[in-house]
Amino acid sequence: MNEQPLIYLDNAATSFPKPESVYTAIDHYNRHVGAPIGRGAYHKSIALQSDIDLCRKLAAELLGAARPEEIAFTFNGTDSLNTIIHGVLKPGDHVVTSDVEHNSVLRPLQTLKERWGLESTFIPANESGVVEAAAFREAIRDNTRLIILNHASNVTGSIQPVNDVGEIARNAGVLFLVDAAQTAGHLPINVSQMPVDFLACPGHKGLLGPLGTGLIYLRAELAEQVNSFRQGGTGTRSEEETQPETLPDKFESGNHNAPGLIGLKASLEYLQERGISTIREHEQESTARLIEGLRDLPGFDLPGPSQLEGRVGVISLINQMVEPQVLASILDENFGIQTRAGLHCAPRIHRAIQSLDFGGTLRLSPGPFTTMSQIETAISAMHELADSFHF
Amino acid sequence: MNEQPLIYLDNAATSFPKPESVYTAIDHYNRHVGAPIGRGAYHKSIALQSDIDLCRKLAAELLGAARPEEIAFTFNGTDSLNTIIHGVLKPGDHVVTSDVEHNSVLRPLQTLKERWGLESTFIPANESGVVEAAAFREAIRDNTRLIILNHASNVTGSIQPVNDVGEIARNAGVLFLVDAAQTAGHLPINVSQMPVDFLACPGHKGLLGPLGTGLIYLRAELAEQVNSFRQGGTGTRSEEETQPETLPDKFESGNHNAPGLIGLKASLEYLQERGISTIREHEQESTARLIEGLRDLPGFDLPGPSQLEGRVGVISLINQMVEPQVLASILDENFGIQTRAGLHCAPRIHRAIQSLDFGGTLRLSPGPFTTMSQIETAISAMHELADSFHF
Repeated sequence: MNEQPLIYLDNAATSFPKPESVYTAIDHYNRHVGAPIGRGAYHKSIALQSDIDLCRKLAAELLGAARPEEIAFTFNGTDSLNTIIHGVLKPGDHVVTSDVEHNSVLRPLQTLKERWGLESTFIPANESGVVEAAAFREAIRDNTRLIILNHASNVTGSIQPVNDVGEIARNAGVLFLVDAAQTAGHLPINVSQMPVDFLACPGHKGLLGPLGTGLIYLRAELAEQVNSFRQGGTGTRSEEETQPETLPDKFESGNHNAPGLIGLKASLEYLQERGISTIREHEQESTARLIEGLRDLPGFDLPGPSQLEGRVGVISLINQMVEPQVLASILDENFGIQTRAGLHCAPRIHRAIQSLDFGGTLRLSPGPFTTMSQIETAISAMHELADSFHF
Repeated sequence: MNEQPLIYLDNAATSFPKPESVYTAIDHYNRHVGAPIGRGAYHKSIALQSDIDLCRKLAAELLGAARPEEIAFTFNGTDSLNTIIHGVLKPGDHVVTSDVEHNSVLRPLQTLKERWGLESTFIPANESGVVEAAAFREAIRDNTRLIILNHASNVTGSIQPVNDVGEIARNAGVLFLVDAAQTAGHLPINVSQMPVDFLACPGHKGLLGPLGTGLIYLRAELAEQVNSFRQGGTGTRSEEETQPETLPDKFESGNHNAPGLIGLKASLEYLQERGISTIREHEQESTARLIEGLRDLPGFDLPGPSQLEGRVGVISLINQMVEPQVLASILDENFGIQTRAGLHCAPRIHRAIQSLDFGGTLRLSPGPFTTMSQIETAISAMHELADSFHF
């Protein structure tokens, strides 16, 4: 590997670096605590439990949940989405969702279609990768049980009209699940003030925690309508073979990823201190400069909303001549810049932005620690790259 | 907390400490790698993939799997068990299992009973917490699809006759799932030479990896018979909305716990170097001394097999006068000894060993790093404790 300092522009996959306190907390837990969560009568285990309670409280505050129990910990964003999708849908149901979704939504839906005939309607995205709320209203049927919408695309960064779609869902008596994989930690979110029933996200992207963590916001009064996804020991009511109905136990079986959650607690403390609005501002500056510097890059298209307010810090570039993997490899090898190439596990949106025939896109996603000088280096590298190919 | 050096006798919950190389590997990953697994075109991500491939290979070797793809990574033992149980069982099916099982088996089965009427037969355990293989043969019906058996009880440490039960299953054309939560890393296991179809275990107990890891051994030719449990992005065939059928992708959706698996790789390397037989010998010495020192402890019963060969390093003590939680707290506060108290998420076995009326047991579980001097200190502490209560 080259010896240049690395520039990490793959925060949409997982954030890097994490705050220093995350590393310290995990290493301290690993070396000096080591206990599992909530199942021991000894001091260390009880102290750990209070750290995890704090982690849950911080997550609830960050997302605006009314009560900490409305947050359940999972192991990644996919696990969170599967928990709600498999927990809510039953034979005879219909789902309305969109072409913006990730395979973590598309594949569970396709699986349920094959298993017992789930019906789904996919609302198309426009050429900027944005869906129109009104289309959801028109797609609702008598048997529509759930609407699922990505808060922001992991390909184009386009923010979707979740509040409008949520209002439509609420008025129609349909449950509403938001995939916040690209927005939690990036945009201010307040589920208590949004028409959202369930919100799923990983802990390791915008929330800056380690991989192996995820969470679900689940409106308490709806818990009964969601079957448990995974059953097992909860450290509570061990004498009962029936999965507990209490929150969050119903959705948290087996040993937690304790070092992961200790790291997530540290990152949530960091986010609270720095503030999501400050991070949003920082990421908008990086994004604005990237768009400005790359919009007219010869040979490349840059799809997505033209207004900065309509975007998170995820930028895709389409090149009709060279495979995105080749471009990503050159950026890595020659410039020490880490990007991502391909379909990004979201196949449908590539039809809308017309990148399917070209192997998808080259994606650049800055994060809260990306500096403006790194952004300038990346822009220069992209221009050098374009020159070298004589685009 | 007291300032005495802690003696950790809760390895049946999670092993502690882990090998030093586990801590180092995780911290190095966190600070210097940070990339997700298998989805990036950049150097670091590709190098990480080869570490994870090695982790899978080491796990396959440790368990005797014919091919690395027969190992799928999950997030804990419960996640592993749920993947197989929910993946295999269909309406109309009957399961044979035992009273030795953990809630991570009992609760999924109970859930399926409530959801669609799964039928289950529970083979009782004798007063030592051991099941009789022949009873499984008698319990098999025309619609029996799966036998599930705990390899060793997490309450009594009693090793179950998995090979005999496996033969019975194989002869009857019934699938066989072994819960190796208390044996993987503690006992030599070779699934290629055992009549075992599926084996589930956590990565953080005997395998000495971090919490947040788990794995499944799944005989390749049976993969078609197991539905995927969680669907989503696999970093492969992203253009297809159908969950891939290829192993291990079918059972590995969403981002892996990369720091966890990097830690697990380091612990598997440690296990390979030290050797499972050596660890088994070490744990048998600790266990033998604990049994010798505690067998005649006034006021306490010590259930479980009388022969050392029939046990793993998990010892339960039953006291009819004092709640086990109280005893565990005293051991922690006054002696710096960490044990576990209660039902240990395995309610049924307490009827067999007659501890249900007394709130379960006080459990002591040494590990590969427990020293003989710590064992002696624990024995002395237990005698002091018994004296103080005038048992």
